[in-house]
Amino acid sequence: MKKSLVALAALAAAGIASAQSSVTLYGVADVWLGSTKTETLQGGVLTGVRQTVQGSGGYNGSRFGLRGTEDLGGGLKANFVLEQGFNIDTGAQASAGLQFNRQAFLGLAGGFGEVRFGRQYTAYDTLRAATNNSFDSSFATTGTVWGKGVADYGNRRDNQITYISPDFSGFSGAITYALGENKTATSSATDTTAFHVKYAAGPLLVGAAYQQEEVSNTVDRTYTLLAGSYDFGVAKLTAGYNRAKLDMGGKDNEYQLGVDFPVASNARIAVGYVHAKYKLANGASNGKGNGYTITGYYDLSKRTRLYAGLNNYSVKNAAGVKTEKGNLYAVGVRHSF
Amino acid sequence: MKKSLVALAALAAAGIASAQSSVTLYGVADVWLGSTKTETLQGGVLTGVRQTVQGSGGYNGSRFGLRGTEDLGGGLKANFVLEQGFNIDTGAQASAGLQFNRQAFLGLAGGFGEVRFGRQYTAYDTLRAATNNSFDSSFATTGTVWGKGVADYGNRRDNQITYISPDFSGFSGAITYALGENKTATSSATDTTAFHVKYAAGPLLVGAAYQQEEVSNTVDRTYTLLAGSYDFGVAKLTAGYNRAKLDMGGKDNEYQLGVDFPVASNARIAVGYVHAKYKLANGASNGKGNGYTITGYYDLSKRTRLYAGLNNYSVKNAAGVKTEKGNLYAVGVRHSF
Amino acid sequence: MKKSLVALAALAAAGIASAQSSVTLYGVADVWLGSTKTETLQGGVLTGVRQTVQGSGGYNGSRFGLRGTEDLGGGLKANFVLEQGFNIDTGAQASAGLQFNRQAFLGLAGGFGEVRFGRQYTAYDTLRAATNNSFDSSFATTGTVWGKGVADYGNRRDNQITYISPDFSGFSGAITYALGENKTATSSATDTTAFHVKYAAGPLLVGAAYQQEEVSNTVDRTYTLLAGSYDFGVAKLTAGYNRAKLDMGGKDNEYQLGVDFPVASNARIAVGYVHAKYKLANGASNGKGNGYTITGYYDLSKRTRLYAGLNNYSVKNAAGVKTEKGNLYAVGVRHSF
Repeated sequence: MKKSLVALAALAAAGIASAQSSVTLYGVADVWLGSTKTETLQGGVLTGVRQTVQGSGGYNGSRFGLRGTEDLGGGLKANFVLEQGFNIDTGAQASAGLQFNRQAFLGLAGGFGEVRFGRQYTAYDTLRAATNNSFDSSFATTGTVWGKGVADYGNRRDNQITYISPDFSGFSGAITYALGENKTATSSATDTTAFHVKYAAGPLLVGAAYQQEEVSNTVDRTYTLLAGSYDFGVAKLTAGYNRAKLDMGGKDNEYQLGVDFPVASNARIAVGYVHAKYKLANGASNGKGNGYTITGYYDLSKRTRLYAGLNNYSVKNAAGVKTEKGNLYAVGVRHSF
Repeated sequence: MKKSLVALAALAAAGIASAQSSVTLYGVADVWLGSTKTETLQGGVLTGVRQTVQGSGGYNGSRFGLRGTEDLGGGLKANFVLEQGFNIDTGAQASAGLQFNRQAFLGLAGGFGEVRFGRQYTAYDTLRAATNNSFDSSFATTGTVWGKGVADYGNRRDNQITYISPDFSGFSGAITYALGENKTATSSATDTTAFHVKYAAGPLLVGAAYQQEEVSNTVDRTYTLLAGSYDFGVAKLTAGYNRAKLDMGGKDNEYQLGVDFPVASNARIAVGYVHAKYKLANGASNGKGNGYTITGYYDLSKRTRLYAGLNNYSVKNAAGVKTEKGNLYAVGVRHSF
Repeated sequence: MKKSLVALAALAAAGIASAQSSVTLYGVADVWLGSTKTETLQGGVLTGVRQTVQGSGGYNGSRFGLRGTEDLGGGLKANFVLEQGFNIDTGAQASAGLQFNRQAFLGLAGGFGEVRFGRQYTAYDTLRAATNNSFDSSFATTGTVWGKGVADYGNRRDNQITYISPDFSGFSGAITYALGENKTATSSATDTTAFHVKYAAGPLLVGAAYQQEEVSNTVDRTYTLLAGSYDFGVAKLTAGYNRAKLDMGGKDNEYQLGVDFPVASNARIAVGYVHAKYKLANGASNGKGNGYTITGYYDLSKRTRLYAGLNNYSVKNAAGVKTEKGNLYAVGVRHSF
């Protein structure tokens, strides 16, 4: 009977669709082999040991996750993401003891944009990751060099409320507010607030972002970012300026620049440069840092990428003496599922 | 060749069916925003700080799980559940370091009922959860108020053997026995034993449950519950009486009452009241506690629920002096997948 | 419009195929009930307490995992496995705090064999597991008895590179090298190296394996295994000889023997014997150990197995005095999904 076959097919299709709409299991397995050496000043001498290592997440952090979307009708959707990072070289959690350390949120999306609740990336991080040099891979020295003065920002926060605006002819933005939940009788909770605005159209992306982290009730760390990218086709440029400030501590001016270009339809090479001037709150120099990266990839398929890269960075103090340097070279494979 | 296409289709269909029957990935993402304050006696004064918080599991604990059923033929089935709780506000495990903290069991089911082995809910908990006020949500003050005298029961046990009877015209029951596995040369293992019997038919559920927790070889905690519910359609009543006893410690009489009613086809409101009289083993008063809850939900779909609620509770000592009080109000979203 | 329907069906089919090829969720739930007693010398007397226990992994370690294979074309494939062990009796991770403690690797396979990177079994372990008595279940006393002199080998390693050869007319092999990643200014990294070669054809499997674990820069533990099995149909024999050596510590000669035979088309029984002579580095006796196992299984289906087993072992010192003994009897169920 054709009828019952059609009915069965309809049922099967519904069943599969429902299963698919309710939860998707996905992830990344990214492993590399390389050599790394970090030297710090010990007794006036730069000292360190070269280590041959297998590492995880050279291009993208190894992870697995559950995500789903439900259409609630009337343009409204419920979305969730539960995402766990892990180190494929050891099998360990990326953040010891933290189940879904990368992301854990539930959101409602509609014509108004999207509101999300849970552990999430800050709005500052969203822009910074999108405009980082060297494909935002771990070969980029941005976090390392920028963090040697005022401590670098936190990219994720617990107890965060996120609002992501719709796209208005290329313009969009996001605001995030993370509750400290640690108010006492004498001090208020140490919250983290962030936002970004950006314009994205065709080859152009340009934006500004800000993040304020309350270290205590009287001390804040703030980060102000201006960054963008332009894809000329023959090459894509990325650039960013960041101002990191610690109340009564420091005022750092930080820069990064990158260019990446295709060498085949499935292969690109990127070069990146990162610079920072660390200053005390009174404006006196506290030293400077530089970092360089060359990296490239070759895609075996949409899901499997071979990559290689090398970087080095160094930090000098106010007197111009090198106090730290490091380098890394590695080859790896990234597989998405 | 049509033949090979048909064969492929058959194979594919079999593959999907087998994959589906063997394991299902499911879960709950439940997040809320609210304000909470708990005050305890400090230097003779009730002291506490109001905290604005984002929380997990207002209506149902956030979780993900794997479950499956295999038909072994002859009416026999193998079942398993592996269920992990997590806090969506932080991404952390609900019980630090415990993979499947909610449930982890393998069972065999047939005409005789079902036998399960692993970490599971006790038989006492099964009835208590089914008859709790305020939709057994975390707005209910039952566990809080009842636990201020004799410590409240443990709802799950490691190393448990569970027997669940079939339904005999509405009558059914369950027995659970959890091995202590801590026998020494001078003391036996501290096991936990529980059972319930219940009658469920149409709008009526009524039952009795008992749990004995061996604290040590000479000291037990026991819990005796009489509870039920009746759905009049226009409203559903729930009620429960519990007797919590600690050898040489206390004998508490505990009550809870709830009513919930539909305000639309996809929305209900519930009101709950919880009371406890804490008594010493010799019968002398040790104080009393009260709790109140109002909560309601609105279902955006079968899988996504908006909810709101508030509660408060207070505890007085034998002299009638308030020694602790707390309240919470919150709005949230619960999404099942 | 029929056209769009066909297009939709094609899309749906592609989606399912891609989803299936990209990741498979699988696992084992294995629980047992039993009684166990281990006695060790305390004040000259063998002392211990019999314990009634529920345990996990009697036949195979309880686990869940994600695995996938992508065909990259040209005979090349990308494979990954992420596998987490857990104890079904408590819900806890098999290795506290270690996400994918069993396996976490990404590999590339082709005509040349397969190369894998991550946390993996050593090549020595692969042969030893394949030739162990008593179905390599936890009833086998091999690990217990062999480990009472020189500590037994580690079966998995972090940061491992594995090469598995193709099959050459029955001959194959594997090499594994695990980076220590702990080099200092004065000592090199403590790596682990292992390999095996084997011949497998029809009923015959025979092989040799070697593992070297660097305990420190001057002290190694090495394991040399000769082992095999032959399936006569009416019964299958397994046998193994192992030499465990600790530099300046001990030189143990270790043996294991097993026979298992069908008692029905879905049931087998196995008997195992394990022996070890522990010797000091100078060749003087340091005692000996013996272990016996009887176990059997009955398959309810391809995925669900009932099993039972008992074992006992004892260790004597150089003077022939029993210093330790233990036994276990248990019944269990293993369910694969």
